[in-house]
Amino acid sequence: MKAFNYYNPVKVIFGGRQTEIADILKADGHSKILLVYGKNSIKKSGLYDEICASLNDNGIEFTEHGGVSSNPVLSHAKEGALKAKDTTAVLAVGGGSVIDESKAIAAAVGTGCDIWELYEGKKPTCALDLYVILTISATGSEVNDGSVLTNEETKEKLSFGSPLVYPRVSIVNPALALTLSQNYIAYSAVDIIAHVLEIYFTAEEHPKIQNGFCENIVKSVIKAAEKILKNPNDMDARSEFALCASWALNGLTSLGVGNYSFPNHMIEHSLSAIYNVPHGAGLAVVLPAWLKWFCKSNKKQAKRFAQKVFNKKSAQEGISALKSWFSEIGAPVTLKELGIANGDIEKIAENVDLVSDRWGLKEEYPIKTIKKILNLMK
Amino acid sequence: MKAFNYYNPVKVIFGGRQTEIADILKADGHSKILLVYGKNSIKKSGLYDEICASLNDNGIEFTEHGGVSSNPVLSHAKEGALKAKDTTAVLAVGGGSVIDESKAIAAAVGTGCDIWELYEGKKPTCALDLYVILTISATGSEVNDGSVLTNEETKEKLSFGSPLVYPRVSIVNPALALTLSQNYIAYSAVDIIAHVLEIYFTAEEHPKIQNGFCENIVKSVIKAAEKILKNPNDMDARSEFALCASWALNGLTSLGVGNYSFPNHMIEHSLSAIYNVPHGAGLAVVLPAWLKWFCKSNKKQAKRFAQKVFNKKSAQEGISALKSWFSEIGAPVTLKELGIANGDIEKIAENVDLVSDRWGLKEEYPIKTIKKILNLMK
Repeated sequence: MKAFNYYNPVKVIFGGRQTEIADILKADGHSKILLVYGKNSIKKSGLYDEICASLNDNGIEFTEHGGVSSNPVLSHAKEGALKAKDTTAVLAVGGGSVIDESKAIAAAVGTGCDIWELYEGKKPTCALDLYVILTISATGSEVNDGSVLTNEETKEKLSFGSPLVYPRVSIVNPALALTLSQNYIAYSAVDIIAHVLEIYFTAEEHPKIQNGFCENIVKSVIKAAEKILKNPNDMDARSEFALCASWALNGLTSLGVGNYSFPNHMIEHSLSAIYNVPHGAGLAVVLPAWLKWFCKSNKKQAKRFAQKVFNKKSAQEGISALKSWFSEIGAPVTLKELGIANGDIEKIAENVDLVSDRWGLKEEYPIKTIKKILNLMK
Repeated sequence: MKAFNYYNPVKVIFGGRQTEIADILKADGHSKILLVYGKNSIKKSGLYDEICASLNDNGIEFTEHGGVSSNPVLSHAKEGALKAKDTTAVLAVGGGSVIDESKAIAAAVGTGCDIWELYEGKKPTCALDLYVILTISATGSEVNDGSVLTNEETKEKLSFGSPLVYPRVSIVNPALALTLSQNYIAYSAVDIIAHVLEIYFTAEEHPKIQNGFCENIVKSVIKAAEKILKNPNDMDARSEFALCASWALNGLTSLGVGNYSFPNHMIEHSLSAIYNVPHGAGLAVVLPAWLKWFCKSNKKQAKRFAQKVFNKKSAQEGISALKSWFSEIGAPVTLKELGIANGDIEKIAENVDLVSDRWGLKEEYPIKTIKKILNLMK
């Protein structure tokens, strides 16, 4: 096992306690905040009114920054940073996109830098306090220190991480997802599985305890997703699903595994940067193709995955089972199903090649390899 | 799944980095600390010299408080609190006992109260900063906010918990356990398994994801312990073992399970309070007996445990397998093997009955029930 450091100070409040947010902000000394949210779903569901009433009743002033898109973009984050200038905290109400854009705003305003500098490698030195009310469990952003943003001009989708942007408090209420379309469940399940498997497969070492944890998350999210798709009101399944999402990317599954990478996310980010496809949908296409290409490099782990998760004998059968499951829950598994022409492979590969250096994957993934993987998505 | 709060801000540094402690203390602004340790093992191993040199080289003054016993006692903790009066931090170098006594000192000095008051229910309001260099992985105290102490006069072994006593930093270096006797491995394995199973069995609810995590920890610690007992220099196994110990009681296995209790610990604390037996040895006797008594109340979970952990069909076979495994690794499984006469059952039951109220288990465990369980330890 490799040496590691672990630190995750996020306070998680799990359950229907979103209206406590005003008390929490007050206790932490905040009286003027930026309220960040997405399109209209929190207004339709009534959550927006609930939060505003709680803030107003407690005398907390807030500037609104709605309209975060599902692949959050730089221009919108910049507008948010301008609005946040005289606030001391950011409250993100939404899913991973809203949280990620909020992290960008919190760090850029705190540090006094341009937002894109953070994604180009600048280390933030300070950040506004970040609070989260989670409405969609998928990215794990509510319990980690990472953020992903798309620069629409350059078509780059990049990430940054800093302990300064750990949410101080994340309120996770699985009931808030009840008003969302069922599509989210399928895409979110894929995202959760991808988070786990990127580490599970690319890690330098595979401690038994971590293998077991990873397989448990994948098996649990598969079961939970199937239950929710069958009965959207199955709150136990929704709670398990939410827990899986947080577990998948709170840093615990990578303890002791040494170096690992996120090649599937790298490739998918190009798909969503160019075509604005949902992240989870893109991953459903990328992951089986990448696994097919990758499995020869670590036959033992690929076979273990097939056996432990899908009760299959060979690595190939395991990958097929995963791909079939993605199809069954309604996720696309080919470029075509994602609405992308096979003829675009060259263009996509060039976009990936543009950023592979920033992912530390330039050597391991030359453009030839990327094309090979993309060709498996036909 | 039940609602929950989770917060665990401990910074874990895993690997051979114990000499960094002076830099960490300096960075946090500490120049005078209390150094707490056990009997002679850290002196024999050279760790004591290494730590002292690091502190001296960095100009950190320290008062020594050695001699913590394996079931730490109130009188010794009180001496430590007197010595800590003009310090700002406590550095615990040792296993769970040293950490637990350090937590008591840190909270009592910070709050300005008597140590035993904490164990009798007083909430600490402030605590000295606590730092840990872990030498024995077992209790999980390095990553949680609990502490256990024995009052030798009243023969009570009680616990308290407060977020104020979370270690700020815990350095976990599995290599530090290499100089310890192999006995520790067996007893520590039992302790780790007991931490997991107390929650696994007594919880109000059993989310699938948590069942999977718990079973994974138990299976992993069994494998790791067997490897270490066969080859004490198997560092990978030692690392897995250390991770299991931390996982078992860092609060994660209980997320969403609702209420749970620690009846095995309650009963064992009486054994070690009266006879000063090692905690893990006591638990090896208590756990199979308690399971035998308990399994009828949750047949489904007991059967699941048998199947998933030991690949056995019935609950009874699972319990027998656990008991046999304890025996195989050299842990006692009867009162007699623990050096306690069966005739003492009455006396032990009375001691448990004295504290069951403080464990919140007075109703569930009347003295009649305790005697019944103790009789299964014959």
